[in-house]
Amino acid sequence: MQAHELSQVIARADKAINEEDFDSLMKFYAADATLVVMPGKHAVGVEAIRKAFVAIAEHFNHTLQVTQRDMVVIEGGDAALVLARTHVAATMKGCEPYDVERRATYVFRRGGSGAWQCVIDNSYGSDVLAGLTP
Amino acid sequence: MQAHELSQVIARADKAINEEDFDSLMKFYAADATLVVMPGKHAVGVEAIRKAFVAIAEHFNHTLQVTQRDMVVIEGGDAALVLARTHVAATMKGCEPYDVERRATYVFRRGGSGAWQCVIDNSYGSDVLAGLTP
Repeated sequence: MQAHELSQVIARADKAINEEDFDSLMKFYAADATLVVMPGKHAVGVEAIRKAFVAIAEHFNHTLQVTQRDMVVIEGGDAALVLARTHVAATMKGCEPYDVERRATYVFRRGGSGAWQCVIDNSYGSDVLAGLTP
Repeated sequence: MQAHELSQVIARADKAINEEDFDSLMKFYAADATLVVMPGKHAVGVEAIRKAFVAIAEHFNHTLQVTQRDMVVIEGGDAALVLARTHVAATMKGCEPYDVERRATYVFRRGGSGAWQCVIDNSYGSDVLAGLTP
């Protein structure tokens, strides 16, 4: 099965995260996009998202490496829901390793130029429900 | 916390499913929406979605009851990602009970009238990844 074009878009966004190239990274987001920084905490708009990524890079001691696998893209209207296993790895201050896999959910929309832009970046997927009811 | 307006929209859509009121149900979908009938099988467009719901009602022996709980709505741009625990219950032919909970992911968009419309209905959430890699 040929990979959906969004798999390459997201791979380039991950590369920008991993290289802390936030100028490039912001081009992947719609101006009024929302990033789930952690369940219940959202950054809204590219300025807030950029600040959040700067803080995330610092939190992960500038060693953050994000990759995706098993991507499924479901298009409907001019939107796309992307589901993937997201691997988040880093070496924290004190040298302890951070290594988790999340089931991410991303929503993209085709912008006016036809390019896909991320409008909702929720790498926690349904884990945002975790605190609600067992 | 006040419930998001989409919780009422989705409750009305569930009522329409449970009453097999497919005329009302189709009003919740954008014309070019996508329904995940099962992982890997999609119905695209309201005509196909309506046919799928007719088949689903028959499959569940006209006893299907769908409800949601623990809904989280994340808005970005003019889209909204809805995450919820979806309870699907029915009594199958032969009287055996069907009773499952899914972690659903729905994508809505504001239509021209300002009303929310579903563009991607994926009640399986990240379970669409399940068959890919353990």
